[in-house]
Amino acid sequence: MPTGAPTYELFYWPSIQGRGEFVRLTLEAAGVPYVDVARLSAEQGGGVQALAAILAKVDGGGPFFAPPVLRHGAVTLSQTAAILQYLGPRLGLVPDDEASRLQANHLQLTIADFVLETHDTHHPIASSLYYEDQKPEARRRSELFITSRIPKYLGYFERVLETNPAGGGRHAVGSALSYVDLSLFQVMAGLGYAFPRALSRISSRLSHLVALRDRVAAEPAIASYLASSRRLPFDLQGIFRHYPELDP
Amino acid sequence: MPTGAPTYELFYWPSIQGRGEFVRLTLEAAGVPYVDVARLSAEQGGGVQALAAILAKVDGGGPFFAPPVLRHGAVTLSQTAAILQYLGPRLGLVPDDEASRLQANHLQLTIADFVLETHDTHHPIASSLYYEDQKPEARRRSELFITSRIPKYLGYFERVLETNPAGGGRHAVGSALSYVDLSLFQVMAGLGYAFPRALSRISSRLSHLVALRDRVAAEPAIASYLASSRRLPFDLQGIFRHYPELDP
Repeated sequence: MPTGAPTYELFYWPSIQGRGEFVRLTLEAAGVPYVDVARLSAEQGGGVQALAAILAKVDGGGPFFAPPVLRHGAVTLSQTAAILQYLGPRLGLVPDDEASRLQANHLQLTIADFVLETHDTHHPIASSLYYEDQKPEARRRSELFITSRIPKYLGYFERVLETNPAGGGRHAVGSALSYVDLSLFQVMAGLGYAFPRALSRISSRLSHLVALRDRVAAEPAIASYLASSRRLPFDLQGIFRHYPELDP
Repeated sequence: MPTGAPTYELFYWPSIQGRGEFVRLTLEAAGVPYVDVARLSAEQGGGVQALAAILAKVDGGGPFFAPPVLRHGAVTLSQTAAILQYLGPRLGLVPDDEASRLQANHLQLTIADFVLETHDTHHPIASSLYYEDQKPEARRRSELFITSRIPKYLGYFERVLETNPAGGGRHAVGSALSYVDLSLFQVMAGLGYAFPRALSRISSRLSHLVALRDRVAAEPAIASYLASSRRLPFDLQGIFRHYPELDP
Protein backbone atom coordinates (compact mmCIF):
# COMPACT_ATOMS: atom_id res chain seq x y z
CA MET A 1 0.00 0.00 0.00
CA PRO A 2 1.48 3.40 -0.88
CA THR A 3 2.00 5.73 2.06
CA GLY A 4 1.41 9.16 0.61
CA ALA A 5 0.55 12.42 2.34
CA PRO A 6 -2.37 12.11 4.73
CA THR A 7 -5.84 12.83 3.39
CA TYR A 8 -7.72 15.92 4.45
CA GLU A 9 -10.81 14.90 6.40
CA LEU A 10 -13.52 17.49 6.98
CA PHE A 11 -16.09 16.91 9.72
CA TYR A 12 -19.16 19.09 9.29
CA TRP A 13 -22.93 18.88 9.24
CA PRO A 14 -23.72 16.76 6.20
CA SER A 15 -26.82 18.60 4.97
CA ILE A 16 -25.91 22.30 5.03
CA GLN A 17 -23.26 24.61 3.62
CA GLY A 18 -22.80 26.48 6.90
CA ARG A 19 -19.33 27.32 8.09
CA GLY A 20 -18.01 24.10 6.58
CA GLU A 21 -18.51 25.60 3.13
CA PHE A 22 -15.55 27.93 3.59
CA VAL A 23 -13.38 24.85 4.10
CA ARG A 24 -14.98 22.92 1.24
CA LEU A 25 -14.37 25.82 -1.18
CA THR A 26 -10.71 25.97 -0.19
CA LEU A 27 -10.16 22.24 -0.64
CA GLU A 28 -12.07 22.27 -3.94
CA ALA A 29 -10.15 25.26 -5.31
CA ALA A 30 -6.90 23.46 -4.62
CA GLY A 31 -8.10 20.31 -6.32
CA VAL A 32 -6.81 18.06 -3.54
CA PRO A 33 -8.56 14.85 -2.55
CA TYR A 34 -10.53 15.17 0.66
CA VAL A 35 -13.22 13.31 2.54
CA ASP A 36 -16.37 15.09 3.72
CA VAL A 37 -16.68 12.53 6.49
CA ALA A 38 -20.18 13.11 7.82
CA ARG A 39 -21.59 12.89 4.30
CA LEU A 40 -20.48 9.27 4.11
CA SER A 41 -22.92 6.65 5.33
CA ALA A 42 -22.68 5.31 8.86
CA GLU A 43 -21.43 2.02 7.38
CA GLN A 44 -18.56 3.92 5.78
CA GLY A 45 -17.70 5.62 9.07
CA GLY A 46 -19.71 8.75 8.34
CA GLY A 47 -22.94 10.34 9.48
CA VAL A 48 -23.48 12.70 12.36
CA GLN A 49 -22.15 10.09 14.77
CA ALA A 50 -18.69 10.61 13.21
CA LEU A 51 -19.12 14.31 13.87
CA ALA A 52 -20.09 13.76 17.51
CA ALA A 53 -17.14 11.40 17.99
CA ILE A 54 -14.51 13.81 16.68
CA LEU A 55 -15.89 16.70 18.77
CA ALA A 56 -15.62 14.67 21.96
CA LYS A 57 -12.17 13.23 21.26
CA VAL A 58 -9.79 14.51 23.91
CA ASP A 59 -6.45 13.49 22.51
CA GLY A 60 -4.98 15.43 19.61
CA GLY A 61 -6.26 18.92 20.29
CA GLY A 62 -9.80 18.29 21.48
CA PRO A 63 -12.37 18.35 22.81
CA PHE A 64 -13.81 20.74 20.24
CA PHE A 65 -16.76 23.04 20.79
CA ALA A 66 -18.34 22.87 17.36
CA PRO A 67 -17.75 21.85 13.76
CA PRO A 68 -16.11 22.33 11.33
CA VAL A 69 -13.22 20.13 12.43
CA LEU A 70 -10.36 19.22 10.11
CA ARG A 71 -8.20 16.13 10.58
CA HIS A 72 -4.97 15.83 8.63
CA GLY A 73 -2.73 13.00 9.76
CA ALA A 74 -1.88 13.59 13.41
CA VAL A 75 -3.30 17.13 13.36
CA THR A 76 -6.90 17.85 14.32
CA LEU A 77 -8.25 21.37 14.68
CA SER A 78 -11.48 23.31 14.72
CA GLN A 79 -12.68 26.86 14.02
CA THR A 80 -13.08 27.87 10.39
CA ALA A 81 -10.46 30.61 10.33
CA ALA A 82 -7.93 28.37 12.09
CA ILE A 83 -8.56 25.58 9.60
CA LEU A 84 -8.07 27.95 6.66
CA GLN A 85 -4.93 29.36 8.25
CA TYR A 86 -3.63 25.78 8.41
CA LEU A 87 -4.70 24.86 4.87
CA GLY A 88 -3.65 28.05 3.11
CA PRO A 89 0.12 27.45 2.98
CA ARG A 90 -0.30 23.73 2.29
CA LEU A 91 -2.63 24.31 -0.65
CA GLY A 92 -0.93 27.38 -2.13
CA LEU A 93 -3.91 29.54 -1.24
CA VAL A 94 -2.13 32.24 0.73
CA PRO A 95 1.08 34.13 -0.10
CA ASP A 96 4.38 32.88 1.30
CA ASP A 97 5.36 35.92 3.34
CA GLU A 98 4.44 36.24 7.01
CA ALA A 99 2.89 39.70 6.65
CA SER A 100 0.42 38.45 4.04
CA ARG A 101 -0.46 35.47 6.20
CA LEU A 102 -1.19 37.67 9.19
CA GLN A 103 -3.32 39.86 6.96
CA ALA A 104 -5.23 36.88 5.52
CA ASN A 105 -5.95 35.65 9.03
CA HIS A 106 -7.34 38.92 10.36
CA LEU A 107 -9.48 39.33 7.25
CA GLN A 108 -10.82 35.80 7.65
CA LEU A 109 -11.62 36.45 11.31
CA THR A 110 -13.54 39.56 10.29
CA ILE A 111 -15.45 37.46 7.75
CA ALA A 112 -16.23 35.05 10.62
CA ASP A 113 -17.65 37.91 12.67
CA PHE A 114 -19.80 39.00 9.73
CA VAL A 115 -21.01 35.43 9.20
CA LEU A 116 -22.11 35.20 12.82
CA GLU A 117 -23.93 38.53 12.56
CA THR A 118 -25.61 37.29 9.39
CA HIS A 119 -26.75 34.11 11.12
CA ASP A 120 -28.20 36.12 13.97
CA THR A 121 -30.48 38.09 11.64
CA HIS A 122 -32.80 35.08 11.67
CA HIS A 123 -31.81 33.95 15.19
CA PRO A 124 -31.37 37.12 17.26
CA ILE A 125 -32.67 35.57 20.48
CA ALA A 126 -31.26 32.03 20.43
CA SER A 127 -30.03 29.38 18.04
CA SER A 128 -32.03 26.88 20.06
CA LEU A 129 -35.37 28.47 19.13
CA TYR A 130 -37.05 28.18 15.75
CA TYR A 131 -37.03 31.21 13.50
CA GLU A 132 -40.82 31.20 13.81
CA ASP A 133 -40.42 31.84 17.54
CA GLN A 134 -38.34 34.99 17.05
CA LYS A 135 -39.80 36.60 13.93
CA PRO A 136 -40.49 40.11 15.26
CA GLU A 137 -36.98 40.30 16.69
CA ALA A 138 -35.52 38.93 13.45
CA ARG A 139 -37.37 41.59 11.48
CA ARG A 140 -36.01 44.33 13.68
CA ARG A 141 -32.46 43.00 13.64
CA SER A 142 -32.50 42.47 9.87
CA GLU A 143 -33.61 46.02 9.22
CA LEU A 144 -30.53 47.38 11.00
CA PHE A 145 -28.36 44.66 9.50
CA ILE A 146 -29.38 45.85 6.03
CA THR A 147 -29.05 49.56 6.68
CA SER A 148 -25.94 49.47 8.82
CA ARG A 149 -23.99 46.22 9.01
CA ILE A 150 -24.02 45.04 5.37
CA PRO A 151 -22.76 48.43 4.15
CA LYS A 152 -20.15 48.61 6.90
CA TYR A 153 -18.71 45.13 6.35
CA LEU A 154 -18.95 45.03 2.55
CA GLY A 155 -17.70 48.61 2.32
CA TYR A 156 -14.72 47.50 4.36
CA PHE A 157 -13.96 44.49 2.15
CA GLU A 158 -14.42 46.61 -0.97
CA ARG A 159 -11.79 48.97 0.42
CA VAL A 160 -9.50 46.04 1.17
CA LEU A 161 -9.70 45.00 -2.50
CA GLU A 162 -9.20 48.57 -3.70
CA THR A 163 -6.19 49.27 -1.53
CA ASN A 164 -4.25 46.00 -1.77
CA PRO A 165 -1.25 47.24 -3.75
CA ALA A 166 -0.39 43.80 -5.18
CA GLY A 167 -3.93 42.75 -5.99
CA GLY A 168 -4.88 45.11 -8.80
CA GLY A 169 -8.37 45.24 -7.27
CA ARG A 170 -8.76 41.52 -7.87
CA HIS A 171 -7.42 39.94 -4.69
CA ALA A 172 -7.82 40.67 -0.99
CA VAL A 173 -4.30 39.51 -0.13
CA GLY A 174 -1.26 39.30 -2.40
CA SER A 175 -1.50 38.94 -6.14
CA ALA A 176 -3.24 35.58 -6.56
CA LEU A 177 -6.31 33.68 -5.45
CA SER A 178 -6.33 33.04 -1.69
CA TYR A 179 -8.69 31.47 0.80
CA VAL A 180 -9.85 34.99 1.67
CA ASP A 181 -11.02 35.55 -1.92
CA LEU A 182 -12.87 32.24 -1.79
CA SER A 183 -14.54 33.23 1.46
CA LEU A 184 -15.54 36.62 0.08
CA PHE A 185 -17.13 34.78 -2.86
CA GLN A 186 -19.15 32.70 -0.40
CA VAL A 187 -20.25 35.76 1.58
CA MET A 188 -21.38 37.55 -1.59
CA ALA A 189 -23.14 34.45 -2.89
CA GLY A 190 -24.82 33.89 0.45
CA LEU A 191 -25.99 37.46 0.83
CA GLY A 192 -27.23 37.39 -2.76
CA TYR A 193 -29.38 34.42 -1.80
CA ALA A 194 -30.55 35.68 1.60
CA PHE A 195 -30.88 39.41 1.00
CA PRO A 196 -31.12 39.86 -2.79
CA ARG A 197 -32.95 43.17 -2.61
CA ALA A 198 -30.67 44.70 -0.02
CA LEU A 199 -27.57 43.58 -1.89
CA SER A 200 -28.77 44.81 -5.28
CA ARG A 201 -29.43 48.26 -3.83
CA ILE A 202 -25.78 48.71 -2.87
CA SER A 203 -24.06 46.61 -5.53
CA SER A 204 -23.08 49.63 -7.60
CA ARG A 205 -20.82 50.69 -4.73
CA LEU A 206 -19.25 47.22 -4.51
CA SER A 207 -17.84 46.78 -7.98
CA HIS A 208 -14.68 44.97 -6.85
CA LEU A 209 -16.57 42.53 -4.67
CA VAL A 210 -19.14 41.79 -7.36
CA ALA A 211 -16.40 41.19 -9.93
CA LEU A 212 -14.49 38.99 -7.47
CA ARG A 213 -17.61 36.90 -6.82
CA ASP A 214 -18.16 36.35 -10.54
CA ARG A 215 -14.49 35.64 -11.21
CA VAL A 216 -14.23 33.07 -8.41
CA ALA A 217 -17.43 31.36 -9.59
CA ALA A 218 -15.82 31.03 -13.03
CA GLU A 219 -12.55 29.51 -11.79
CA PRO A 220 -12.57 26.05 -13.40
CA ALA A 221 -12.22 24.11 -10.14
CA ILE A 222 -14.91 26.19 -8.45
CA ALA A 223 -17.26 26.18 -11.45
CA SER A 224 -16.97 22.41 -11.55
CA TYR A 225 -17.65 22.17 -7.81
CA LEU A 226 -20.65 24.50 -7.92
CA ALA A 227 -22.17 22.37 -10.70
CA SER A 228 -21.65 19.15 -8.77
CA SER A 229 -23.75 17.40 -6.14
CA ARG A 230 -20.97 18.10 -3.64
CA ARG A 231 -22.19 21.72 -3.49
CA LEU A 232 -25.22 21.70 -1.25
CA PRO A 233 -27.86 24.28 -2.10
CA PHE A 234 -28.59 27.37 -0.04
CA ASP A 235 -31.66 26.63 2.03
CA LEU A 236 -33.55 27.57 5.19
CA GLN A 237 -31.25 25.64 7.53
CA GLY A 238 -27.87 27.27 7.06
CA ILE A 239 -26.33 30.64 7.84
CA PHE A 240 -27.69 32.44 4.79
CA ARG A 241 -31.48 32.07 4.67
CA HIS A 242 -33.93 33.78 2.40
CA TYR A 243 -36.97 34.95 4.31
CA PRO A 244 -38.61 37.53 2.03
CA GLU A 245 -40.08 39.36 5.01
CA LEU A 246 -36.52 40.09 6.26
CA ASP A 247 -35.49 41.63 2.92
CA PRO A 248 -38.36 43.95 2.02
CA MET B 1 19.49 56.06 21.94
CA PRO B 2 19.48 52.30 22.40
CA THR B 3 17.81 50.38 19.62
CA GLY B 4 16.26 47.43 21.41
CA ALA B 5 13.37 45.24 20.37
CA PRO B 6 10.36 47.19 19.16
CA THR B 7 7.75 48.17 21.73
CA TYR B 8 4.34 46.54 21.74
CA GLU B 9 1.70 49.16 20.95
CA LEU B 10 -1.92 48.33 21.66
CA PHE B 11 -4.64 50.40 20.01
CA TYR B 12 -7.99 50.00 21.73
CA TRP B 13 -10.85 52.07 23.14
CA PRO B 14 -9.31 53.98 26.02
CA SER B 15 -12.23 53.82 28.47
CA ILE B 16 -13.38 50.19 28.47
CA GLN B 17 -11.92 46.74 29.03
CA GLY B 18 -13.68 45.24 26.00
CA ARG B 19 -11.81 42.90 23.72
CA GLY B 20 -8.61 44.86 24.33
CA GLU B 21 -8.51 43.48 27.85
CA PHE B 22 -7.49 40.04 26.59
CA VAL B 23 -4.43 41.66 25.03
CA ARG B 24 -3.70 43.83 28.07
CA LEU B 25 -3.78 40.79 30.38
CA THR B 26 -1.34 38.93 28.15
CA LEU B 27 1.12 41.83 28.00
CA GLU B 28 0.80 42.41 31.75
CA ALA B 29 1.31 38.73 32.61
CA ALA B 30 4.53 38.74 30.60
CA GLY B 31 5.76 41.89 32.29
CA VAL B 32 6.89 43.46 29.02
CA PRO B 33 6.76 47.19 28.42
CA TYR B 34 3.87 48.22 26.18
CA VAL B 35 2.00 51.34 25.24
CA ASP B 36 -1.78 51.50 25.47
CA VAL B 37 -1.76 54.14 22.77
CA ALA B 38 -5.28 55.51 22.85
CA ARG B 39 -5.00 56.07 26.61
CA LEU B 40 -2.26 58.60 26.03
CA SER B 41 -3.31 62.20 25.52
CA ALA B 42 -3.75 63.58 22.03
CA GLU B 43 -0.58 65.65 22.59
CA GLN B 44 1.32 62.42 23.23
CA GLY B 45 -0.07 60.87 20.03
CA GLY B 46 -2.93 59.11 21.77
CA GLY B 47 -6.68 59.46 22.06
CA VAL B 48 -9.33 57.98 19.83
CA GLN B 49 -7.85 59.80 16.84
CA ALA B 50 -4.83 57.48 17.07
CA LEU B 51 -7.24 54.57 16.98
CA ALA B 52 -9.05 55.90 13.92
CA ALA B 53 -5.74 56.50 12.16
CA ILE B 54 -4.40 52.99 12.67
CA LEU B 55 -7.67 51.40 11.53
CA ALA B 56 -7.61 53.32 8.26
CA LYS B 57 -3.93 52.79 7.52
CA VAL B 58 -3.65 50.77 4.31
CA ASP B 59 0.01 49.85 4.30
CA GLY B 60 1.24 47.14 6.62
CA GLY B 61 -1.75 44.86 6.81
CA GLY B 62 -4.63 47.31 6.95
CA PRO B 63 -7.20 48.64 6.66
CA PHE B 64 -8.58 47.06 9.82
CA PHE B 65 -12.25 46.60 10.60
CA ALA B 66 -12.16 47.19 14.34
CA PRO B 67 -9.89 47.40 17.37
CA PRO B 68 -7.96 45.92 19.07
CA VAL B 69 -4.98 46.48 16.78
CA LEU B 70 -1.43 45.60 17.80
CA ARG B 71 1.64 47.21 16.27
CA HIS B 72 5.04 45.67 16.86
CA GLY B 73 7.79 47.11 14.72
CA ALA B 74 6.84 46.55 11.09
CA VAL B 75 3.98 44.21 12.00
CA THR B 76 0.44 45.48 12.49
CA LEU B 77 -2.50 43.17 13.01
CA SER B 78 -6.02 43.11 14.35
CA GLN B 79 -8.48 40.59 15.80
CA THR B 80 -7.99 39.55 19.41
CA ALA B 81 -7.28 35.86 18.77
CA ALA B 82 -4.80 36.71 16.01
CA ILE B 83 -3.00 39.17 18.27
CA LEU B 84 -2.74 36.60 21.05
CA GLN B 85 -1.54 33.99 18.58
CA TYR B 86 1.21 36.43 17.59
CA LEU B 87 2.11 37.40 21.16
CA GLY B 88 1.98 33.94 22.73
CA PRO B 89 5.29 32.57 21.43
CA ARG B 90 7.07 35.91 21.84
CA LEU B 91 6.01 36.28 25.47
CA GLY B 92 6.35 32.65 26.52
CA LEU B 93 2.61 32.36 27.02
CA VAL B 94 1.95 29.34 24.82
CA PRO B 95 3.83 26.03 24.62
CA ASP B 96 6.53 25.61 21.99
CA ASP B 97 5.06 22.72 20.03
CA GLU B 98 2.85 23.25 17.03
CA ALA B 99 0.02 21.01 18.27
CA SER B 100 -0.35 23.05 21.45
CA ARG B 101 -0.34 26.29 19.48
CA LEU B 102 -3.08 25.05 17.19
CA GLN B 103 -5.06 24.01 20.24
CA ALA B 104 -4.55 27.37 21.97
CA ASN B 105 -5.77 29.15 18.86
CA HIS B 106 -8.97 27.17 18.45
CA LEU B 107 -9.73 27.55 22.15
CA GLN B 108 -9.17 31.30 21.92
CA LEU B 109 -11.46 31.53 18.89
CA THR B 110 -14.15 29.70 20.85
CA ILE B 111 -13.68 32.21 23.67
CA ALA B 112 -14.13 34.96 21.07
CA ASP B 113 -17.42 33.42 19.96
CA PHE B 114 -18.59 33.25 23.56
CA VAL B 115 -17.58 36.87 24.14
CA LEU B 116 -19.65 37.99 21.15
CA GLU B 117 -22.64 36.00 22.40
CA THR B 118 -22.20 37.58 25.81
CA HIS B 119 -22.14 41.06 24.30
CA ASP B 120 -25.31 40.35 22.38
CA THR B 121 -27.24 39.55 25.58
CA HIS B 122 -27.57 43.29 26.08
CA HIS B 123 -27.51 44.13 22.36
CA PRO B 124 -29.50 41.39 20.59
CA ILE B 125 -30.92 43.70 17.93
CA ALA B 126 -28.04 46.03 17.10
CA SER B 127 -24.88 47.48 18.60
CA SER B 128 -25.93 50.82 17.20
CA LEU B 129 -29.01 51.02 19.43
CA TYR B 130 -28.97 51.76 23.15
CA TYR B 131 -29.64 48.92 25.55
CA GLU B 132 -32.74 50.85 26.62
CA ASP B 133 -34.09 50.48 23.07
CA GLN B 134 -33.84 46.67 23.10
CA LYS B 135 -34.66 45.72 26.67
CA PRO B 136 -37.44 43.16 26.06
CA GLU B 137 -35.29 41.39 23.48
CA ALA B 138 -32.28 41.52 25.82
CA ARG B 139 -34.36 39.96 28.58
CA ARG B 140 -35.44 37.14 26.32
CA ARG B 141 -31.97 36.51 24.95
CA SER B 142 -30.36 36.61 28.40
CA GLU B 143 -32.78 34.03 29.77
CA LEU B 144 -31.68 31.52 27.13
CA PHE B 145 -28.07 32.61 27.45
CA ILE B 146 -28.21 31.75 31.16
CA THR B 147 -30.03 28.45 30.82
CA SER B 148 -28.31 27.20 27.70
CA ARG B 149 -25.22 29.06 26.49
CA ILE B 150 -23.35 29.71 29.75
CA PRO B 151 -23.60 26.04 30.77
CA LYS B 152 -22.64 24.89 27.29
CA TYR B 153 -19.57 27.10 26.93
CA LEU B 154 -18.33 26.91 30.52
CA GLY B 155 -19.05 23.19 30.64
CA TYR B 156 -16.89 22.87 27.57
CA PHE B 157 -13.99 24.85 29.03
CA GLU B 158 -14.29 22.93 32.30
CA ARG B 159 -13.91 19.73 30.30
CA VAL B 160 -10.88 21.19 28.48
CA LEU B 161 -9.21 21.81 31.85
CA GLU B 162 -10.15 18.36 33.13
CA THR B 163 -8.91 16.48 30.09
CA ASN B 164 -5.67 18.31 29.30
CA PRO B 165 -3.21 15.55 30.15
CA ALA B 166 -0.30 17.94 30.80
CA GLY B 167 -2.25 20.53 32.74
CA GLY B 168 -3.19 18.68 35.93
CA GLY B 169 -6.54 20.46 35.79
CA ARG B 170 -4.78 23.80 36.12
CA HIS B 171 -4.08 24.82 32.53
CA ALA B 172 -6.10 24.75 29.32
CA VAL B 173 -3.08 24.09 27.13
CA GLY B 174 0.25 22.53 28.09
CA SER B 175 1.59 22.57 31.63
CA ALA B 176 2.05 26.27 32.31
CA LEU B 177 0.18 29.57 32.20
CA SER B 178 -0.88 30.50 28.65
CA TYR B 179 -2.86 33.28 27.05
CA VAL B 180 -5.84 30.91 27.03
CA ASP B 181 -5.75 30.66 30.82
CA LEU B 182 -5.58 34.45 31.04
CA SER B 183 -8.58 34.75 28.72
CA LEU B 184 -10.56 32.20 30.72
CA PHE B 185 -9.83 34.26 33.83
CA GLN B 186 -11.27 37.32 32.09
CA VAL B 187 -14.37 35.44 30.95
CA MET B 188 -15.00 34.14 34.46
CA ALA B 189 -14.36 37.56 36.01
CA GLY B 190 -16.63 39.23 33.45
CA LEU B 191 -19.48 36.77 33.89
CA GLY B 192 -19.10 37.08 37.65
CA TYR B 193 -19.68 40.80 37.26
CA ALA B 194 -22.46 40.64 34.66
CA PHE B 195 -24.36 37.52 35.72
CA PRO B 196 -23.39 36.88 39.36
CA ARG B 197 -26.56 34.98 40.19
CA ALA B 198 -26.45 32.77 37.12
CA LEU B 199 -22.78 32.00 37.62
CA SER B 200 -23.11 31.19 41.30
CA ARG B 201 -25.88 28.71 40.57
CA ILE B 202 -23.58 26.58 38.40
CA SER B 203 -20.20 27.27 40.03
CA SER B 204 -20.20 23.98 41.89
CA ARG B 205 -19.98 22.23 38.52
CA LEU B 206 -17.10 24.46 37.40
CA SER B 207 -14.51 23.78 40.06
CA HIS B 208 -11.53 23.87 37.68
CA LEU B 209 -12.59 27.14 36.10
CA VAL B 210 -13.27 28.78 39.45
CA ALA B 211 -9.89 27.68 40.77
CA LEU B 212 -8.16 28.86 37.59
CA ARG B 213 -9.81 32.27 37.90
CA ASP B 214 -8.63 32.66 41.49
CA ARG B 215 -5.14 31.38 40.70
CA VAL B 216 -4.67 33.73 37.75
CA ALA B 217 -5.90 36.68 39.83
CA ALA B 218 -3.23 35.83 42.40
CA GLU B 219 -0.36 35.62 39.90
CA PRO B 220 1.96 38.44 41.06
CA ALA B 221 2.02 40.28 37.72
CA ILE B 222 -1.76 40.00 37.34
CA ALA B 223 -2.51 40.88 40.96
CA SER B 224 -0.37 43.97 40.56
CA TYR B 225 -2.13 44.89 37.32
CA LEU B 226 -5.61 44.38 38.77
CA ALA B 227 -4.75 46.67 41.66
CA SER B 228 -3.42 49.40 39.35
CA SER B 229 -5.17 52.20 37.51
CA ARG B 230 -4.25 50.47 34.26
CA ARG B 231 -7.04 47.97 34.94
CA LEU B 232 -10.24 49.73 33.95
CA PRO B 233 -13.32 48.73 35.95
CA PHE B 234 -16.17 46.65 34.61
CA ASP B 235 -18.99 49.03 33.74
CA LEU B 236 -22.09 49.48 31.60
CA GLN B 237 -20.16 50.23 28.39
CA GLY B 238 -18.14 47.09 27.76
CA ILE B 239 -18.89 43.49 26.83
CA PHE B 240 -19.74 42.32 30.35
CA ARG B 241 -22.50 44.52 31.78
CA HIS B 242 -24.46 44.04 34.96
CA TYR B 243 -28.13 44.76 34.41
CA PRO B 244 -29.88 43.11 37.38
CA GLU B 245 -33.03 42.57 35.31
CA LEU B 246 -31.06 40.29 32.97
CA ASP B 247 -29.79 38.12 35.84
CA PRO B 248 -32.87 37.44 37.96
